[in-house]
Amino acid sequence: MKSKIINDPVHGFISLPQGILLDIIEHPYFQRLRRIAQVSLTHYVYPGAIHTRFHHALGAMHLMDQALSSLRAKGVDISDEEFLAAKQAILLHDIGHGPFSHTLENSLIGVSHEQLSIFFMEKLNEEFGGALDLAIRIFKNEYPRPFLHQLISGQLDMDRMDYLSRDSYFTGVYEGVIGYDRLIKMLDVREDELVVEEKGIYSIEKFLMARRLMYWQVYLHKTVLASELMLIRVLQRAGALGRAGALKSHSGALSVFLEREITAKDFEENRDEWLDAFSRLDDVDVLYALKQFAREEDFLLSFLSSSILSRKLFKLRFSQEPFSKEEIHRQVQKTARRFDLPEEQAAELVFSGVESNEEYNIKAGEIKILFKSGEILPFSESLGYEIQHRLIKKYYLCVPKG
Amino acid sequence: MKSKIINDPVHGFISLPQGILLDIIEHPYFQRLRRIAQVSLTHYVYPGAIHTRFHHALGAMHLMDQALSSLRAKGVDISDEEFLAAKQAILLHDIGHGPFSHTLENSLIGVSHEQLSIFFMEKLNEEFGGALDLAIRIFKNEYPRPFLHQLISGQLDMDRMDYLSRDSYFTGVYEGVIGYDRLIKMLDVREDELVVEEKGIYSIEKFLMARRLMYWQVYLHKTVLASELMLIRVLQRAGALGRAGALKSHSGALSVFLEREITAKDFEENRDEWLDAFSRLDDVDVLYALKQFAREEDFLLSFLSSSILSRKLFKLRFSQEPFSKEEIHRQVQKTARRFDLPEEQAAELVFSGVESNEEYNIKAGEIKILFKSGEILPFSESLGYEIQHRLIKKYYLCVPKG
Amino acid sequence: MKSKIINDPVHGFISLPQGILLDIIEHPYFQRLRRIAQVSLTHYVYPGAIHTRFHHALGAMHLMDQALSSLRAKGVDISDEEFLAAKQAILLHDIGHGPFSHTLENSLIGVSHEQLSIFFMEKLNEEFGGALDLAIRIFKNEYPRPFLHQLISGQLDMDRMDYLSRDSYFTGVYEGVIGYDRLIKMLDVREDELVVEEKGIYSIEKFLMARRLMYWQVYLHKTVLASELMLIRVLQRAGALGRAGALKSHSGALSVFLEREITAKDFEENRDEWLDAFSRLDDVDVLYALKQFAREEDFLLSFLSSSILSRKLFKLRFSQEPFSKEEIHRQVQKTARRFDLPEEQAAELVFSGVESNEEYNIKAGEIKILFKSGEILPFSESLGYEIQHRLIKKYYLCVPKG
Amino acid sequence: MKSKIINDPVHGFISLPQGILLDIIEHPYFQRLRRIAQVSLTHYVYPGAIHTRFHHALGAMHLMDQALSSLRAKGVDISDEEFLAAKQAILLHDIGHGPFSHTLENSLIGVSHEQLSIFFMEKLNEEFGGALDLAIRIFKNEYPRPFLHQLISGQLDMDRMDYLSRDSYFTGVYEGVIGYDRLIKMLDVREDELVVEEKGIYSIEKFLMARRLMYWQVYLHKTVLASELMLIRVLQRAGALGRAGALKSHSGALSVFLEREITAKDFEENRDEWLDAFSRLDDVDVLYALKQFAREEDFLLSFLSSSILSRKLFKLRFSQEPFSKEEIHRQVQKTARRFDLPEEQAAELVFSGVESNEEYNIKAGEIKILFKSGEILPFSESLGYEIQHRLIKKYYLCVPKG
Repeated sequence: MKSKIINDPVHGFISLPQGILLDIIEHPYFQRLRRIAQVSLTHYVYPGAIHTRFHHALGAMHLMDQALSSLRAKGVDISDEEFLAAKQAILLHDIGHGPFSHTLENSLIGVSHEQLSIFFMEKLNEEFGGALDLAIRIFKNEYPRPFLHQLISGQLDMDRMDYLSRDSYFTGVYEGVIGYDRLIKMLDVREDELVVEEKGIYSIEKFLMARRLMYWQVYLHKTVLASELMLIRVLQRAGALGRAGALKSHSGALSVFLEREITAKDFEENRDEWLDAFSRLDDVDVLYALKQFAREEDFLLSFLSSSILSRKLFKLRFSQEPFSKEEIHRQVQKTARRFDLPEEQAAELVFSGVESNEEYNIKAGEIKILFKSGEILPFSESLGYEIQHRLIKKYYLCVPKG
Repeated sequence: MKSKIINDPVHGFISLPQGILLDIIEHPYFQRLRRIAQVSLTHYVYPGAIHTRFHHALGAMHLMDQALSSLRAKGVDISDEEFLAAKQAILLHDIGHGPFSHTLENSLIGVSHEQLSIFFMEKLNEEFGGALDLAIRIFKNEYPRPFLHQLISGQLDMDRMDYLSRDSYFTGVYEGVIGYDRLIKMLDVREDELVVEEKGIYSIEKFLMARRLMYWQVYLHKTVLASELMLIRVLQRAGALGRAGALKSHSGALSVFLEREITAKDFEENRDEWLDAFSRLDDVDVLYALKQFAREEDFLLSFLSSSILSRKLFKLRFSQEPFSKEEIHRQVQKTARRFDLPEEQAAELVFSGVESNEEYNIKAGEIKILFKSGEILPFSESLGYEIQHRLIKKYYLCVPKG
Repeated sequence: MKSKIINDPVHGFISLPQGILLDIIEHPYFQRLRRIAQVSLTHYVYPGAIHTRFHHALGAMHLMDQALSSLRAKGVDISDEEFLAAKQAILLHDIGHGPFSHTLENSLIGVSHEQLSIFFMEKLNEEFGGALDLAIRIFKNEYPRPFLHQLISGQLDMDRMDYLSRDSYFTGVYEGVIGYDRLIKMLDVREDELVVEEKGIYSIEKFLMARRLMYWQVYLHKTVLASELMLIRVLQRAGALGRAGALKSHSGALSVFLEREITAKDFEENRDEWLDAFSRLDDVDVLYALKQFAREEDFLLSFLSSSILSRKLFKLRFSQEPFSKEEIHRQVQKTARRFDLPEEQAAELVFSGVESNEEYNIKAGEIKILFKSGEILPFSESLGYEIQHRLIKKYYLCVPKG
Repeated sequence: MKSKIINDPVHGFISLPQGILLDIIEHPYFQRLRRIAQVSLTHYVYPGAIHTRFHHALGAMHLMDQALSSLRAKGVDISDEEFLAAKQAILLHDIGHGPFSHTLENSLIGVSHEQLSIFFMEKLNEEFGGALDLAIRIFKNEYPRPFLHQLISGQLDMDRMDYLSRDSYFTGVYEGVIGYDRLIKMLDVREDELVVEEKGIYSIEKFLMARRLMYWQVYLHKTVLASELMLIRVLQRAGALGRAGALKSHSGALSVFLEREITAKDFEENRDEWLDAFSRLDDVDVLYALKQFAREEDFLLSFLSSSILSRKLFKLRFSQEPFSKEEIHRQVQKTARRFDLPEEQAAELVFSGVESNEEYNIKAGEIKILFKSGEILPFSESLGYEIQHRLIKKYYLCVPKG
């Protein structure tokens, strides 16, 4: 059978056999992921981090192939249908992401990207004559063999393994390198649940720590977070202005989402229309809008937009305690004075909130360790010392510089 | 002195001391390079290749720092002014690039990117009160110590060393990895000209071959070339329609360049105005325009635009002989029939031409080898066997698929 | 000035300027380190791990150069004499290692390798006319600027940074990769003590964890530990037989150490003679002896020697609790029956004991963190959560297989 | 099925299933390869290059597994017996190497290592009850499907792919990195002969050049060559003295080969005895002998031995023309005067000869290129330009320094 080979600097060569997987990839819905950055505006801190959701989806599918092949070699019974469906599901797991990943979810659209992914899968399933039935069941965790879902979404899923490796490669932050091949070789299945062989314990520890370090060095880096808060505020402001009919500039596929907030109900009532509108959206529209917004009259909109474009990013401080109302109000007053704004508007330039990350979340379901004796224990009881959850909360306060 | 550190996955950490270099980087002209892809649409073949001119410029500056430091350690006299100016010059060497690098030069703008770089440098020099005087002289090769210019633009310049390394890293085509650090350590200066120590001969050979292989595997890859030809044709068509007043869609900063062709004369007569217009342009405008064009009525424009966006790329064949007029005409007729177009229009969907690459171009000025005896010989006479120029011409014919 | 360049796959190019450093490297004492494995018999588990103390010493010196250069660039005052002395000291820090690193210390020689390193340095200092005076003071921590000693021997010294990187590279266990360049760039000095900039906290965590993982995956790997216990027992047995005049085979430079146990007192009384004898010893002598011992009549000696040579390694079990006397005795009895040996002799084939490792040892002196405010806090109080010492003890029991 | 996993820093994880392959690896004949350096004394120039024949053999077997799996996936019919036999054959292809690889062949033993490999295979085949029958036929090229032999020994065999990658990794000379995975994916089979897909042409060029550069930068590096010439001369001299009964020192397993020259005839007449003697020999014996020889009375023997041990290596010059008899004689006279030796003996310290390397050897059988059209052409006619053989001869003259 003919197949395409794609050069992936992270995993080497990715094979794409002719058939449904290649058909999915060639579909405009999927090609659109080429224009959606994997890590939003992170390139403002790590200039190499301009990789796309498209690339990540291919990589995760490749790791799924490796994991399933390794499991089969260990004697786990996986049918050809299951094998293919798991690859389809992970290929499509992020298809519902909008521009700059989570930005729109937090500003203009009242539907989660996971829900949007399911809408897209169902639409594609209709186009492909039911070829995605099993993939959708696995994705929704409705299939009776849970390990297949766990490989897509779980404590040790192929999604995380790909994005940690990939984000490390493109940022140059090697703290995130995780040796996924070793970890994958340690996976096994017992009673249709994913387990990890005893000798993989150190690799799990490394993986959990790598993930935690990537959170603080990359995903929640002060400047990255500041840029994302600014971008969300731009879209909120543009939405408010748009709904009030006060936007002059043209912004293509984004316009419809600036005119009114779209909710889950809209999608349920009229899935195809809204999915079509959403599928036209990508980072290009938002970036183009920023360039237009920078020339709008509204001060908040133009100030935020031009600040993002020329990388005049706000200053963000972290604290282990919440910032007091007084402190936040002082910043609002200071901002009001500086820009000669009413406090109500100045408050839109002061962001406060909290971010948290937990190294190992027991409640999310434990990683299971398979001992040589055949015994299976939760990870937290397999270490020989007490596990540290390291739930860390960081409160932030973010204001214009200078 | 305070300095910023940037994480570059290719070269490790890049130090940016406070001062003029950081001021240049923070200037909107330079920040704009964040939105200009280094290798145009190459990501359609190598999905990781979405790195930017911004990143390349920083990397080339870093290598310049390493090269000058190494030369100083060997006793080459380089003043602090020369050191800084050479870094400024290479930092700005690509500042004149438009969207998708060479695309606009070949369609809408009658000025080369090198000339535009000089315009930008002169404008910045005015803003920075003459701080770029020496950098501009070096860039134009008007400074009496030629090795400084040779490090920016020559057979073994820091530009090439950076882009070969970087393009390899992001494409995953390891044929382009060149071990630049060894090569840089082999550089020396005699009578103000760059020379390479005898023991660096193998590294030069590796470098020349790596460059040749990158040409054929990446820069002139069939599918990459096809996508670029299509993009140039889109802009030519949009320009023709625009000048005829037949474009409906709005395309922001690009609009002005669609209304009339801008020439060198325009820039000379009214540099600041045109530079300002040009400086507003980046990849976002072209991508956004493609999305708009895809909905225009003009068949050629919308067909080409939507084909690019959904990656329905034309088929390109290479040949060692020129394609005959008859063959080209046959393809035009076939295309006319297929799309039900007059031949005149069908001809706009058939691209033919020639690309060439020479592994070692003696006429461009030979690399000079410094032997232990003190003797200096041209590279071509230093090898112990005859050099192979490998001037290769490939004729291409590119047509819609199917 | 002329200099040699050495190609190090771990750190790239290492520059060796003419002068005292190169003279030290060319000295037979130092060349002997080429024949001393860095990680003993670890190659029985990780076949690539055959790198030498020679290579490690060069690497550590290279990192010292980088660290001192970075500190100087931050304004720390370091004289040329101090710079050179610190490089000399780290270059020689392991010069006192005998064959298979710690093996002889645990069997035939009653002097630690650190003490032997000092003897060697003092001897070389005499040969080089006092050129190592300052290096020796720094090495002994008798110089009033402690950060220089801390870079050689401390929680974040260049020794550890080199060996973790190097052992990872040659074993292929990427859990030990530590991004030392970032960590080195974060070092600073306050009141002549080493501190780490606040933003380096994550890198420290990564470093500590990498070190811990390397302990359990490599240095204390079950099979590695078993092979080292066997090798120590071989030498103990050979020593006992040798002192009793019951060894037939010839074993070159090792012979003198088999005839009587050498103590610190011997070295003090007759340093030059014993140093000369010791300096003739390297891994070759021990390996050769193993090949001879395998043909000796004494069962224990020949059985252990041939088992090591043909990699028939003993089986080792870890436990979080000490093994009971009864359990150990059972193993001795079993071994006695199996090999038809008196229990007294069988006991020499049963090894039990304990190994431990602590991720972060507060008592050894805390890492100091320098905050942007100028405040300096111990690492354990800088994290925002309680530190985990992870002092782990593992008891082992090791017996012949089968 | 249970399997062992070995961590190879070059190729990642190597799987070793239980069975005949693991039995071979555990055999003392094979374990002996742990004590045979892959690239002799190359570590005197590249300190990392201390990897072993053992490691190389595992790596080559791993690449064979990948190549055969890839061919099967393309539809090439390969039976399980052929698959296993090809892996056995490449695992054992170097089993006949003596200490320091080619050194003994050039001094004490009149049998090639290829012939010795066959002796070892036949002996093992007896032990394993005929399980190596097919492997031996393939190794000798007596099996009717030549591509299996070509993968072991040919222009693009797995032996070369492994050693180029491995030697690059351990020396740090990245000129030898070849991207073997791409090349392996391009292999195919037509009429039982190995062919390379058209799009693999650049990878072949890269491979041939990498090999050539490794020859000049590593395998035939001046200092490496000098050390090997010295080592050969030591053994020749020791043999001459030994046969004359004039050696005092003991040198274990090497002794028997110093007493008389062993020829192919000896092996044929008494294979098992000589194979047994040979199988006891490894690098340890030669290194130990050097340490003993350094204390022998014979000046040539002790001078050469101690020079190697303390890395006082001879000076070697290359020339494109043969050195004249007069020049050589002058060097002999100079050496005679310097060491106060009769000319006859001084001549033993002056080495002259020639080394050559050809980038692409057409006579050895061309690489075959498979075009998309189905046509198969020799590589030299597939390039679009004339191939350069680059047969390079370098004459050398090597004398004591100073």
